[in-house]
Amino acid sequence: MRVLGVDPGLTRCGVGVVDGAPGTQLRLVTVDVIRTSPDDDIGTRLIGLERGLEALLDAYRPDAVAVERVFSQHNVSTVIGTAQAGAIAIACGARRGLPVVLHTPSEAKAAVTGNGRADKAQVTSMVTRLLRLDTPPKPADAADALALAICHVWRGGAQARIQAARMRQYGVDR
Amino acid sequence: MRVLGVDPGLTRCGVGVVDGAPGTQLRLVTVDVIRTSPDDDIGTRLIGLERGLEALLDAYRPDAVAVERVFSQHNVSTVIGTAQAGAIAIACGARRGLPVVLHTPSEAKAAVTGNGRADKAQVTSMVTRLLRLDTPPKPADAADALALAICHVWRGGAQARIQAARMRQYGVDR
Repeated sequence: MRVLGVDPGLTRCGVGVVDGAPGTQLRLVTVDVIRTSPDDDIGTRLIGLERGLEALLDAYRPDAVAVERVFSQHNVSTVIGTAQAGAIAIACGARRGLPVVLHTPSEAKAAVTGNGRADKAQVTSMVTRLLRLDTPPKPADAADALALAICHVWRGGAQARIQAARMRQYGVDR
Repeated sequence: MRVLGVDPGLTRCGVGVVDGAPGTQLRLVTVDVIRTSPDDDIGTRLIGLERGLEALLDAYRPDAVAVERVFSQHNVSTVIGTAQAGAIAIACGARRGLPVVLHTPSEAKAAVTGNGRADKAQVTSMVTRLLRLDTPPKPADAADALALAICHVWRGGAQARIQAARMRQYGVDR
């Protein structure tokens, strides 16, 4: 199973693709950050992000997309940009008939470190270890996207199958 | 100038198209509500909304899109759905190279009633009068989308031209 993890953001959107299955060794496929400029208007930024995601989906053809669920605890102005970027990622996956599943940051942290409140260093350290990388993934702030993808490989199997069945039922398929 | 106004929402997204120019009589082209089911997953809902908006853009070919700016005063869970739906509307317009401008609810209310705190009945009444309709527009909750479109016809001219120039500069054009 190949999963694209997306840590949504307008200025920096972390993206990571991981191959794996529950009980088998995980493999890093790619990791990156899609950037859009705060100087551009929101339309230009959202389609810039969309193009980046489409290119990634074309190049790596994941089986599922895991997007970080927007956290209502955040301050509201951050939430708006994150929700907008997340909507683009969700739509890009759903438009291709891919199962799109949302995981909270705590779920992703708990999946890779065993602790839903783990700090960034701990998440990066475990992602590096789980993917058997020689050095921490770069860009560093894309580690959360990899944690989401790993979380989904381990937790999301059943959920993804249910969603895929629902998408087919609604005639949304590749 | 033909403007598509969008009052974004996941369950009900108000859409209205208006023809007009500053100083000339306004004309209603179409008004509707695009609905998606709260029972569906977020991916299905966002692409359902996207399809509805694309069909509208194909059918009526507006020159600009006016989307309600998400209000940070709202409660956060409402803000997330509104921001997600708004992002889809913004991306649909921007992808076609259309100028996309955001107006706050107060700006739209002030444009049609002279009062940024006008209530729904007052907005509906003025939209009905300004468009010279015999009866209030239906569905009733799409009146805000028409107010946004009218607001943009009257206020948005200069802003839209600047944005269109920026979009062309970035190579995003029809």
